[in-house]
Amino acid sequence: MSTTPETPLLDTLRDPADIRRLTTAQLEQLAHEVRAEMIDIVSHTGGHLSAGLGVVELTVALHHVFNTPEDRLIWDVGHQSYPHKIVTGRRERMRSLRQGGGISGFTLREESPYDPFGAGHSSTSISAGLGMAAAAELLGDDRLVIAVIGDGSMSAGMAYEAMNNAGAMKSRLIVILNDNDMSIAPPVGAMSAYLSRLLSSNSWLSIRDLAKEVASHLPPPLERTARRAEEYARSIMTGGNTLFEELGFYYVGPIDGHRMDHLVPVLRNVRDGRRDGPVLIHVVTRKGKGYAPAEAAPDKYHGVSRFNIVTGVQDKGKPQAPSYTNVFGKSLLTEAIRDPRIVAITAAMPSGTGLDKFAETFPDRTYDVGIAEQHAVTFAAGLACEGLRPFVAMYSTFLQRAFDQVVHDVALQNLPVRIAVDRAGFVGADGATHGGVFDMAFLGCIPNLVIMCAADEAELARMVATAALYDDGPTVLRYPRGEGVGVEIPDAPEPLAIGKGRVVREGKGVALLSIGTRLHDCLAAAEQLAARGLSPTVADARFAKPLDWDLIEGLARTHEVLVLVEEGSIGGFGSLVVTGLANRGLLDNGLKTRILCIPDRFFEHDTPEAQCAKAGIDASAILDTVLAALGRDLSAEARA
Amino acid sequence: MSTTPETPLLDTLRDPADIRRLTTAQLEQLAHEVRAEMIDIVSHTGGHLSAGLGVVELTVALHHVFNTPEDRLIWDVGHQSYPHKIVTGRRERMRSLRQGGGISGFTLREESPYDPFGAGHSSTSISAGLGMAAAAELLGDDRLVIAVIGDGSMSAGMAYEAMNNAGAMKSRLIVILNDNDMSIAPPVGAMSAYLSRLLSSNSWLSIRDLAKEVASHLPPPLERTARRAEEYARSIMTGGNTLFEELGFYYVGPIDGHRMDHLVPVLRNVRDGRRDGPVLIHVVTRKGKGYAPAEAAPDKYHGVSRFNIVTGVQDKGKPQAPSYTNVFGKSLLTEAIRDPRIVAITAAMPSGTGLDKFAETFPDRTYDVGIAEQHAVTFAAGLACEGLRPFVAMYSTFLQRAFDQVVHDVALQNLPVRIAVDRAGFVGADGATHGGVFDMAFLGCIPNLVIMCAADEAELARMVATAALYDDGPTVLRYPRGEGVGVEIPDAPEPLAIGKGRVVREGKGVALLSIGTRLHDCLAAAEQLAARGLSPTVADARFAKPLDWDLIEGLARTHEVLVLVEEGSIGGFGSLVVTGLANRGLLDNGLKTRILCIPDRFFEHDTPEAQCAKAGIDASAILDTVLAALGRDLSAEARA
Repeated sequence: MSTTPETPLLDTLRDPADIRRLTTAQLEQLAHEVRAEMIDIVSHTGGHLSAGLGVVELTVALHHVFNTPEDRLIWDVGHQSYPHKIVTGRRERMRSLRQGGGISGFTLREESPYDPFGAGHSSTSISAGLGMAAAAELLGDDRLVIAVIGDGSMSAGMAYEAMNNAGAMKSRLIVILNDNDMSIAPPVGAMSAYLSRLLSSNSWLSIRDLAKEVASHLPPPLERTARRAEEYARSIMTGGNTLFEELGFYYVGPIDGHRMDHLVPVLRNVRDGRRDGPVLIHVVTRKGKGYAPAEAAPDKYHGVSRFNIVTGVQDKGKPQAPSYTNVFGKSLLTEAIRDPRIVAITAAMPSGTGLDKFAETFPDRTYDVGIAEQHAVTFAAGLACEGLRPFVAMYSTFLQRAFDQVVHDVALQNLPVRIAVDRAGFVGADGATHGGVFDMAFLGCIPNLVIMCAADEAELARMVATAALYDDGPTVLRYPRGEGVGVEIPDAPEPLAIGKGRVVREGKGVALLSIGTRLHDCLAAAEQLAARGLSPTVADARFAKPLDWDLIEGLARTHEVLVLVEEGSIGGFGSLVVTGLANRGLLDNGLKTRILCIPDRFFEHDTPEAQCAKAGIDASAILDTVLAALGRDLSAEARA
Repeated sequence: MSTTPETPLLDTLRDPADIRRLTTAQLEQLAHEVRAEMIDIVSHTGGHLSAGLGVVELTVALHHVFNTPEDRLIWDVGHQSYPHKIVTGRRERMRSLRQGGGISGFTLREESPYDPFGAGHSSTSISAGLGMAAAAELLGDDRLVIAVIGDGSMSAGMAYEAMNNAGAMKSRLIVILNDNDMSIAPPVGAMSAYLSRLLSSNSWLSIRDLAKEVASHLPPPLERTARRAEEYARSIMTGGNTLFEELGFYYVGPIDGHRMDHLVPVLRNVRDGRRDGPVLIHVVTRKGKGYAPAEAAPDKYHGVSRFNIVTGVQDKGKPQAPSYTNVFGKSLLTEAIRDPRIVAITAAMPSGTGLDKFAETFPDRTYDVGIAEQHAVTFAAGLACEGLRPFVAMYSTFLQRAFDQVVHDVALQNLPVRIAVDRAGFVGADGATHGGVFDMAFLGCIPNLVIMCAADEAELARMVATAALYDDGPTVLRYPRGEGVGVEIPDAPEPLAIGKGRVVREGKGVALLSIGTRLHDCLAAAEQLAARGLSPTVADARFAKPLDWDLIEGLARTHEVLVLVEEGSIGGFGSLVVTGLANRGLLDNGLKTRILCIPDRFFEHDTPEAQCAKAGIDASAILDTVLAALGRDLSAEARA
């Protein structure tokens, strides 16, 4: 696919201490080699490409200037940390990136002392960094804390909360705003527009300005005079206080983030400054920098499969079936064409949630609110108040950010907001930070919600149609990452009866009741049980709320064993069912009930299939559970 | 206690349409009467006093200028909505404020068409209002949307997310920043400091400036010239763009919020302006305005019991035992005196969480981060990374805002952050918006957490000691609102063994296993069962995670009936226990298991006792459940 790049300087590097001894020319050379190495790695492993390429120089400069890991360097989100991993002792392991047992695609405390804070979700770095800076202050440590955060992440309320707190404290926190004018999609919102104005109205810090900055290191009182001159120059440049200064930060920038000769003196100056309080360095970078295909289309190269370096063509493999995300997007578009009240909301992921086509067709009915999940949900509640039919599409893991808003603004007021929960269940290579395993537990406890889980792509289409018509309260649609199972999707999907499940296979003795994706493993397990002379019933609950008690009670009364199966944590579907069974007295006669859910621990990155196997919720685990409940000796009965 | 105030003008008022016909002098008179009426009401009912008193003039002016309820008026938090309720047809019902079946202490959609959005938690109004404004735009309605938000609420990320989105949209949203320099406690953070600077550096809009504003209503081109003059005047006044203008808002202010002759023309001007995009009106008010005791100590009069109007003395009743909140604060202070690594974090509620004494003793070890729950938790994670022992104290209902941070930043990294969950369970008069009923479900599903629930105040002291010493991962302490049960609190509380419950009463046949507050109702039910010749075992699980499986398995194997009791929603403790029982095969022999938890609906304001009775988790319900499980005929056996 490619020849291994020449990396003579990188090859001599043992740890970041070695970077601190390099000259500017050598740093430039090192950055060049790290970039080539990173492109080569990701071309083989897949992963996040554009974000890391944008911060190669910044990474090298930071490790050159700061005393890592004693100084704490925190990468927000963490998907841009590949160059950082390469220069902090993980170069070889990067070849196992995002594979089972291999290196994580995000920063991870247990992976390296150079990762002081794990990430995955955006906009946490300033909070974590401020905590570390406050601790250093309290403990009398003189270490520095540097948080690198992208401009896209600045739309999240959490980043603002942290800045608001930092700006009123005296802790020495250094925030590097990595402004590449991108989140995954182009960023939206007033802050993004503000940053653009800041760039267009100001000249970048020139070498002359840098000289002024450096001059401020002279001993006082010379130093004081120089600083006054510098403040004056700065205020002329920015035309008054920046928004960051109003929030209590000392603002430096904008700086060209690909110029080592600009980055190093500014970082050094900030490092050695004896200023109280937080500093924000505004660094401008280009996502995908140094790799032409990624520079041309940074969103397409945000997350990539393995690819050919020369052509840039990604090896995506042939899809067997459309992805759930696309089925959702297409189904919603179909509904929206006949119902003008349907509107769609995304939190900075129009493409990731399948709403891109919807947005093209109905730009006035699509709201991209930025990385702002709390606002997204309550904004949708406001739309619903006025009789619109809002669909908020969000990954399960990011919906965690809007839990209170679902409780307080949607469910309590019983407003018909539709929440499309994508990437529910295991998510594969993105690992534990992005796992969508908790939503059934954290949504299952909320009154008034109707919660549907799609067992296949045709079911999802029907659930979209169901939610579109349901105005009596909020609905949740839950569906997994990845491709459907290959069933035909109806052109005019029929809405489901609310709270009604279905029996998929009639049997006796053993009942398997699943919700969502696990149906197909239940059917596979049923086949294997049939080969052993058993004839299990298999049912799909479809709804986690309200539960279909006619169906469940029927299963409980006519079977000896009832196995509940879901791709979600404890406290979800199975827990709701078994609690109801107990309170109805349906367990009093010794129904052998088993709950297969995701065990109470975090699961690291792997293939989704491997994750389900490890979690004990696949066909094999279902089979074993049934046989054990029936008292069959598993060791005697070798598997078919 | 007081004589009914004279309210001749208020008495003639049928609805807000009548307010629209009044002269400025009459509006001032009406405000005077509404204030007197509100003080009289709250002196009898108790409730939120200072916040409402601060916005009496603003309330009257808003209903005078805007066409409510067709124009949407949204009160952030809603605790300042009493004057609004008085003038929108709910004056008489206000005498039932916060009582069972009576009027809510917050805005509530089902209560009145004048409440377009329910509230209780802070900082939701801009999001909801922007949704309504966007809907109006899409539907071609020309209604206006006004969101009134306090300066304290501006520290929450959610408000920023909404402003960031609004500033980039063209919807006609009017935000009124009610700047009283207070949240419940004095506000903290850079935004608060910024607002103070804005006030101190600018003269307030004078009558002359107002005249300029009004001049802008002349027809073009005269209008254009006048507006240019006004823009110029404004920019001189504010010394450049305000932060709100940088975020895309048109900024007007500051205005004296108690001067009707200032409020009305400015509001009218904004109403009639044909500007695209959002407007922010900066209104300065005084919390507690017009009632001397409340003006002098707005925090003490934020939430009040019934009180004597003349003296201001509140009728608090004699406490029987210290509150859980105070026990927590005192216990933590005790631990912190011997352990310098203990630090405390609050999100704008130092007094509400009992951390005020801690803050007095250890100001350097206390962090009030503002209304910023997301940041509070991740900030604590940063502190924990550096070896400190952070306790984040927060109400259960507000912890909902930080769910993702508990999952992603604390639990996933297994950081020893201590989360003190106050007001867990029912909260009485504050009602459904503040109910702490979901935490066992939303925390119970998260791996790595240790979750302790205090059955009484001595247990809470021991749990604080336990958490202080536990460095192996995150801990949660859960305790209710209100007073303890009156047991003695040990001076040197002994730490608990992690994951170990206790048998409180040895018995047979029937086992009652409770967690937290329900222990005492279990003991009361046990007494009543004993009077019927039964001898139930009563156990306190103490830990919801990890569960004490030795204890639970023992109970399951040696009893005929097992009742699990908790003050929390479905999906919590009971669900975790019954799921584990099923998977261990402990239900296969027909153990009669029942789960008493809070049913799957929202519970409105009432006394906590009445709420527990309605929810079926009190002693009487436990008794009935046991007898029913045993097959005893309840109608035949009249209760003792």
